[in-house]
Amino acid sequence: MEELEIYAWSKMRHSFNSILELPERYRRNLINSIHGAKTVFLVGTRNASHQSNLAVFSQVLHIGANPPLVGLLFRPDSVQRHTLMNIRETKVFTIQNVRENFFRQAHLTSARYPEDVSEFNQCDLTEEIIADFKAPFVRESSIKIGLSLNSEIPVEVNGTHLIIGQIELIDIEESLISDDGFIDAAQAGSITSGGLDSYYSLKRLARLSYAKPNQGIKEI
Amino acid sequence: MEELEIYAWSKMRHSFNSILELPERYRRNLINSIHGAKTVFLVGTRNASHQSNLAVFSQVLHIGANPPLVGLLFRPDSVQRHTLMNIRETKVFTIQNVRENFFRQAHLTSARYPEDVSEFNQCDLTEEIIADFKAPFVRESSIKIGLSLNSEIPVEVNGTHLIIGQIELIDIEESLISDDGFIDAAQAGSITSGGLDSYYSLKRLARLSYAKPNQGIKEI
Repeated sequence: MEELEIYAWSKMRHSFNSILELPERYRRNLINSIHGAKTVFLVGTRNASHQSNLAVFSQVLHIGANPPLVGLLFRPDSVQRHTLMNIRETKVFTIQNVRENFFRQAHLTSARYPEDVSEFNQCDLTEEIIADFKAPFVRESSIKIGLSLNSEIPVEVNGTHLIIGQIELIDIEESLISDDGFIDAAQAGSITSGGLDSYYSLKRLARLSYAKPNQGIKEI
Repeated sequence: MEELEIYAWSKMRHSFNSILELPERYRRNLINSIHGAKTVFLVGTRNASHQSNLAVFSQVLHIGANPPLVGLLFRPDSVQRHTLMNIRETKVFTIQNVRENFFRQAHLTSARYPEDVSEFNQCDLTEEIIADFKAPFVRESSIKIGLSLNSEIPVEVNGTHLIIGQIELIDIEESLISDDGFIDAAQAGSITSGGLDSYYSLKRLARLSYAKPNQGIKEI
């Protein structure tokens, strides 16, 4: 740690072993927030008895555009277990953006409600059915995606599960889509989350031109 | 599409089949931006001949905190192929935050440079070696993470690869870590990206208390 002195600020340095020795809550906060702000979603499902469920979720990956695929990482031991069970049972789910005007309600969906209680009711969000899709959407969202279960990939190192969904339905305000297909997340009112409990709104910096060697970057 | 008329705004609605029929560039923009703003990183590697490489990357998952694991999704056919080859060759890589004051340089790393050219030089970012770690860091970042390759999981549906890294080193300004381990992404100067080419800065909305049924949400 000798090189600390060359910095104008103090450094915190950790190794794999020193991370393992941290108090559990400190480690959970540190490792969950170290990635920065992530996209945050509400995931809507129903079980076989049509009981609806809604869960806030920030572990989302773009898997591919053709075919259109989305990945969600689940911890089976978490409050998201109802969501995972429902996806396995019904093979469909929805994801939709969290907007600044209802992020507290979205956060409240992470409370451990009993299985026979709908987070839509408890958290004051409106269940919406679109085009007979078999999983519920959130009316207050501006970007709504219906997905079918494509495959489930076990992540053996820690028992998590990557759920791959195929996009079956997109429902979005037309004004949010630019001529080339791009959706501006800030214009959509979408927010991001950091760690387990923090939320951030977005300010657009720039849209940049396709990068090529030895050419300048332009704003588009 | 009869129910369009009940909305005060126009709706764009797509099915799986209508997405497949979209022009390729429009579909790529739409499906890449539909998730909203994602965390964005620079990934640093070297090949066996010590040639360094740097790539901007937004496909990052928190896999777990104990042990501390991070996942990155790679498309083998992309400009990120050098990064994937280097990780397989040397078994180590770094990830670090993109800050608002150098996001144009970070974007420029996505240009298709030849393998024997270092993006550090081409994009005016400073290569930094920390504690003899075998992959290069970016001096301009405020959150730096060194990882070893834990495992590689093929995503068979579209030939992508989920790389799981174990955190071996964290180097961060001490003032960015709160007493309970949380790192505020906005305070760290971290930004997010949307779609393939857009960047957003963050404004902290709130840090919210752990959600419990029938209890209000408080700011903490």
